[in-house]
Amino acid sequence: MTNPSTNGIVLFAHGSRDPLWRLPMEAVLARMRAEQPALEVRCAYLELCAPDLPSTVAAMAAQGITQVGIVPMFLGTGRHAREDLPRMVEELSQAFPQMRLHLSPPIGEDERMTALMARIAAEALVP
Amino acid sequence: MTNPSTNGIVLFAHGSRDPLWRLPMEAVLARMRAEQPALEVRCAYLELCAPDLPSTVAAMAAQGITQVGIVPMFLGTGRHAREDLPRMVEELSQAFPQMRLHLSPPIGEDERMTALMARIAAEALVP
Repeated sequence: MTNPSTNGIVLFAHGSRDPLWRLPMEAVLARMRAEQPALEVRCAYLELCAPDLPSTVAAMAAQGITQVGIVPMFLGTGRHAREDLPRMVEELSQAFPQMRLHLSPPIGEDERMTALMARIAAEALVP
Repeated sequence: MTNPSTNGIVLFAHGSRDPLWRLPMEAVLARMRAEQPALEVRCAYLELCAPDLPSTVAAMAAQGITQVGIVPMFLGTGRHAREDLPRMVEELSQAFPQMRLHLSPPIGEDERMTALMARIAAEALVP
């Protein structure tokens, strides 16, 4: 038997009532699971769809995961997510003192995203 | 004198009252302008901040641009953007018959985005 990983990743997105809205997030999840089957990766949402971040972190804690990277899957990040999310992660760190939670910068602020979006957008030139 | 381009790109995003929210979109814009100075690239927003898509297309028409690629800068695309945006582009095509408007798929549905987001998210593993 192999030891289950104690590391996890949460893809944290805004959420929508529309199930199609979640498809890109779930495509990233599926790809990560295919590439790294031993890594525990989950989606969680700020509002309008389940699961939320607290229940996701609780489920990971129950599974013995002790280190969780939380990745905000936002292109633009408004005050809501910018202020609410760090507070939420801080509260979860207090509620689950055995866990180490690390909040990444919003994915849209990564320069590789900027470069790729510029490349894809340039392809939209009408031929 | 060089001929001004008749091609343009609109980076179309949701919009937010928070000016910081727009930074990633504006970073893509700045990068495209730096890489292709002859190409007319603009940001436009669905709601909560200016400019909107109709005034952006009108401004491009006034400038002599006749072909415009419209790129939805959405990771997840809800019913709102999925249904409203094609209708808006259709109405603009009728209002500006001299222009050719082409609506791209939402940027978050591009497989290169999925792959890059999976790679960036995997780096969020707590060391």
